[in-house]
Amino acid sequence: MKKIVLGSLSAIALATSLNAFAMDAEEAIEFRQAGYKFMAWNMAKIKAMAIDGDVEWNPQQVQAAANSIAATANSGMGALFIPGTEKNVGNTKTRVKPEMFTDIEGVTEVGMAFHKAATELAAAAETGDKATVAKAFGAAGQSCKGCHDKFRMD
Amino acid sequence: MKKIVLGSLSAIALATSLNAFAMDAEEAIEFRQAGYKFMAWNMAKIKAMAIDGDVEWNPQQVQAAANSIAATANSGMGALFIPGTEKNVGNTKTRVKPEMFTDIEGVTEVGMAFHKAATELAAAAETGDKATVAKAFGAAGQSCKGCHDKFRMD
Repeated sequence: MKKIVLGSLSAIALATSLNAFAMDAEEAIEFRQAGYKFMAWNMAKIKAMAIDGDVEWNPQQVQAAANSIAATANSGMGALFIPGTEKNVGNTKTRVKPEMFTDIEGVTEVGMAFHKAATELAAAAETGDKATVAKAFGAAGQSCKGCHDKFRMD
Repeated sequence: MKKIVLGSLSAIALATSLNAFAMDAEEAIEFRQAGYKFMAWNMAKIKAMAIDGDVEWNPQQVQAAANSIAATANSGMGALFIPGTEKNVGNTKTRVKPEMFTDIEGVTEVGMAFHKAATELAAAAETGDKATVAKAFGAAGQSCKGCHDKFRMD
C-alpha cells in the first residue's frame, strides 16, 4: 500500500511539474531519458525470463529488475518535464509531444496507470511465480505504450 | 536485511559478469550509463535537500530518490560490463578503465561498498531525519568516488 501511495504522489508531481532542484533543460531531458532507458533494460530482462524464456527463470533477478522499474517510476520523474523541454534543446533531442505539457488530465491518467502497473509488477515479482510476473509484465508494457501512443513521437 | 542480501548477490553478479540476456556492447554501455546518470539525478536531489539546503526538506521526495538509487544499485548492473565494453564502441564512449574487467577482487570490494551504502541510504531516508540522511548520503558519495577513483578515467 505504501508503494501505491508513493505512486499517487509521483503522479501528482508529474501533473504539477514539481521541480526539486535547479537544472537546465538539456540536463532534464538527459535525466528523464536515462530513467526510461534504464527501465527498458530491466523490462528486457524480465521479458527474456518471463515471456520469451530464452533466459532461465531467475526469481531474484526478476525481483531486482522489477524493484528498479518500480522505484524509477515512483522517483518523481514528472519533475523532469520542466518548461523548455517540450522540444529539442541544442544537440539534445526529445521525442516528447508538446501535448504532454498542456494535457494535464491525460498526463495524470497515463502517469497513474504507469505507477500502478510498475508497483504491481514489483509485487508480482515478490511472489516468484512466473505466470504472475508474465501477467503483470504485460500490464506494465501496456501502461508504457499508453503514454508512448499519446505523448511520444514515432 | 533482505535488501542487503540482494546487494550481496548483485556484487557477485558484478564480479562474475552474469549476463541475463543478449545485447551488444554498445547497448550495454548505454544501459549502464543510463543507470549511473539516473542515480546522479537522484543523488543531486538528496544533496539539494539534505546537504545544501537550497531546496526545502521533503522526506517523501528524499525517500523516493533514495529508493531509486538503492534499487538501481541492486539491479545487477555488473551484467552490463560484458566483454568488449572495456573500450569505446563506435560512437559510444566509455570512461571505464580496462582494469575493471581484470581486477575482480578490487571490483568486488568497491561494488559491495556501493551496494551497502546505497541500501543504507534508503534505510536512512526511511527515518525521515535530515541529519541521518546527510550522514548516509556522505557515505554513499564516498562509495561512488571509491569506484570512480579506481576504475573511471578523468
